Amino acid sequence: MKQQPLISKSALAQRFREVINPAFVIEDSETQKPYECDGLSVYTEMPLLVVLPDTVAQVQEVMRICHHYQVPVIARGAGTGLCAGAMPSPDAVVLSLARFNRILEIDPRSRTARVQPGVRNLAISEAASEQGLYYGPDPSSQIACTIGGNVAENSGGVHCLKYGLTVHNILELEMITVEGERVVVGSQGLDSAGYDLMALMTGSEGLLGVVTEVRVRLLPTPEVAQVVMVAFDSVQKAGDAVGGIIAEGIIPAGLEMMDGYAIQAAEAFAKAGYPVEAEALLLCEVDGTREEVEEHLARVESLFVELGAIATRVSHNEEERALLWKGRKSAFPAVGRLSPDYYCMDGTIPRGQLTHVLTEMQKLSDHYGLRVANVFHAGDGNLHPLILFDANVPGELEKTEEFGARILELCVEVGGCITGEHGVGVEKIRQMHSQFNDQELSLFHAIKHAFDPRGSLNPGKGIPVLKRCQEYRSLDHIDEPSTAGGTH
Amino acid sequence: MKQQPLISKSALAQRFREVINPAFVIEDSETQKPYECDGLSVYTEMPLLVVLPDTVAQVQEVMRICHHYQVPVIARGAGTGLCAGAMPSPDAVVLSLARFNRILEIDPRSRTARVQPGVRNLAISEAASEQGLYYGPDPSSQIACTIGGNVAENSGGVHCLKYGLTVHNILELEMITVEGERVVVGSQGLDSAGYDLMALMTGSEGLLGVVTEVRVRLLPTPEVAQVVMVAFDSVQKAGDAVGGIIAEGIIPAGLEMMDGYAIQAAEAFAKAGYPVEAEALLLCEVDGTREEVEEHLARVESLFVELGAIATRVSHNEEERALLWKGRKSAFPAVGRLSPDYYCMDGTIPRGQLTHVLTEMQKLSDHYGLRVANVFHAGDGNLHPLILFDANVPGELEKTEEFGARILELCVEVGGCITGEHGVGVEKIRQMHSQFNDQELSLFHAIKHAFDPRGSLNPGKGIPVLKRCQEYRSLDHIDEPSTAGGTH
Repeated sequence: MKQQPLISKSALAQRFREVINPAFVIEDSETQKPYECDGLSVYTEMPLLVVLPDTVAQVQEVMRICHHYQVPVIARGAGTGLCAGAMPSPDAVVLSLARFNRILEIDPRSRTARVQPGVRNLAISEAASEQGLYYGPDPSSQIACTIGGNVAENSGGVHCLKYGLTVHNILELEMITVEGERVVVGSQGLDSAGYDLMALMTGSEGLLGVVTEVRVRLLPTPEVAQVVMVAFDSVQKAGDAVGGIIAEGIIPAGLEMMDGYAIQAAEAFAKAGYPVEAEALLLCEVDGTREEVEEHLARVESLFVELGAIATRVSHNEEERALLWKGRKSAFPAVGRLSPDYYCMDGTIPRGQLTHVLTEMQKLSDHYGLRVANVFHAGDGNLHPLILFDANVPGELEKTEEFGARILELCVEVGGCITGEHGVGVEKIRQMHSQFNDQELSLFHAIKHAFDPRGSLNPGKGIPVLKRCQEYRSLDHIDEPSTAGGTH
Repeated sequence: MKQQPLISKSALAQRFREVINPAFVIEDSETQKPYECDGLSVYTEMPLLVVLPDTVAQVQEVMRICHHYQVPVIARGAGTGLCAGAMPSPDAVVLSLARFNRILEIDPRSRTARVQPGVRNLAISEAASEQGLYYGPDPSSQIACTIGGNVAENSGGVHCLKYGLTVHNILELEMITVEGERVVVGSQGLDSAGYDLMALMTGSEGLLGVVTEVRVRLLPTPEVAQVVMVAFDSVQKAGDAVGGIIAEGIIPAGLEMMDGYAIQAAEAFAKAGYPVEAEALLLCEVDGTREEVEEHLARVESLFVELGAIATRVSHNEEERALLWKGRKSAFPAVGRLSPDYYCMDGTIPRGQLTHVLTEMQKLSDHYGLRVANVFHAGDGNLHPLILFDANVPGELEKTEEFGARILELCVEVGGCITGEHGVGVEKIRQMHSQFNDQELSLFHAIKHAFDPRGSLNPGKGIPVLKRCQEYRSLDHIDEPSTAGGTH
């Protein structure tokens, strides 16, 4: 059952002003406007209040106040997320970590950095570069997104094939519980005693606690990185080639794929020299020492030719490499020019299913009469189909959402997963039923209950109400939202 | 409060015989004898019954029966664990997964293997070797230990510095809950939706469920591996050199350290050509392509000399490499020859604290009048001090245990952790209070309660009773064991 807040909005704002600089307690709707959505801007809501504390003690106070008055809390990083995981709610306080933007320590001997959650992903690598180190996961929003948001969504990026997701690149988290208690999870070592609460927190979308400090692992900057662009006359051949390279025992730093639509759009936009007649393009990056990269690139290139490539091109310097990546990196906005609107999906499939899934997706595209451009992290099977649509055509948004849902269900059918790196949030909460049965969802609810018994943290995101409870509710005509964070 | 079983031993055995081949329901104490302890043989107890199911359906039945009659269950792999995590209890059923020993699938395209939990760690690599693949984590017991036990303890090994612990090398688990339900956690992709229950299960020491299938990641076998042996005239210099190498941006496949005692013992035993006059020895393995290894080795060797090495020796072929490792691998039994008994500790410290911790450990050694030999995974700060003692000298075992506890507390004091790869089990349950405060332990209890509300799975291991509850109990003179799995 939903908690009723025990305090008025203005009284709550007053309570916050007693513990936070009043300039950072945002009550008026105009100043609140930038917080109405995250990067998935089709979902918008206004918050009750927005607060921007800047010390751990202040975060604890905010949590204690909200707990005391039964007010839900939605933690927020840079708001670049793509699943509406940080979407506000009119009855909840948005707790922005934007002012937690200090890099506290970079230790080259332990190859770690201790940073506040509001530090931008790329800022960590920039600060560590003097020491020849960098932070591995590189979501495409890395200029803007924050490490706290990365932890919340377990973000990936082009290089996670070789270097792993966020969870593989962090060691320790300081977090504040729903009651305002400070706890530390994980450890400075590889292992930690007790249950792996650090991994549990990572990807938990703000449903279990508020992260106030992150100790990340740093990696040595590779001596050199080079990319080979490989063109194919069919997506099937490209899909098969991805599996072929991986099976060969090479772990590329990145292995990206684009289909015909995406190639044409990216080339028109970025002039990267992509072959526009190709049906599929792979970008395969190899990094390491100069010798290793040369050897691997030669092997990769000849293997791609064996596997049916119609053209290959290797970058010979940083400029050429940057140009080849420019096309890929601008593919989303470039595809945007093909169509008034597009919807970027995110799902994962076993690599061996690439060809099958691409074929099925084409059938769905025909069925719905909506074009789809495919841009994805092929090496780790993380798809990002972009559905092209026109929101001004009545019914087309709904058709797009249905098409998107079918793509996610297709991912599950072939043994994959409804998310690759964007998370579940509000966007995919219904597809959680395709992925998990009620038994599995019950475990999620039990975990949620262990951390947040009243369901006050980011309600309505991540974990859906059990099917049997939905049915029960609909039988009884109980009027409740279709999603719930904490109770079932 | 402790649950009372609702069935007699013989009636329970009879119930099991209805679902499992009766030859695999062990009731008599003589046949039960091999199950009385795990690898930490100072802790022994007899089980109530031992069962060895060999299908998932049978495991589900065992769990349902035990749940129904309120009988605790202790899952067991090969019993090679070193923290008494699989120690039986006279009121609990030991569920051995020894017959779950089939490799179900090796898929080179997705670079994964699907295996049953009773498969030996090394057997996976042997089976995958035809495809040029292997399984990364390599605990020193890898000939005997099983992947199910590795998951339970989140096992590491010599190569986890570069390739990670068990949790970094598995993708998906099938598990049976305490109620006998089958659930799948994790996914075939890098990411999975919902909370990271796969990571939560890994290292949970059988307290949350019984694993019946594991999907592991496989790595491409490196083209070549070479090791350099480096001698120092002080442990301090060796400790500093470890940090120096890591800071240089090289990730060795393994970086092991031995002190004077360990060197002498290992050399007397294995004749590996170790310089017995050295105070500390590092073994640094580099793997990759031939070119990469040559380049890295040269850099590593000259860096070690700069950092004060008094001698270095590089392996030039597989034979020499095997010989250099032979000393390290036989160090435990070799040290055993220096003393009637030894106790192998396991803790982790931040790499930068190596020198400080070694100095403090020497002071403790003097204080307790007990010699300590140090053999450890230096690269990831995982210490394995071996305390030498004589169990026949009255009081010496107790003094050893106290010394060991002090070492673990020292690890915590410098920002480290009371386990590196052996787990907590019974052995370190009291030190959990040094590592975690009651708030943090409360979260662990809440997690336990989410999976196993009655505390029926591996009771008395892993997570201690809260301090405030212990005090409460001692006030009320309530007679309960000092450790508890599920209730507090």
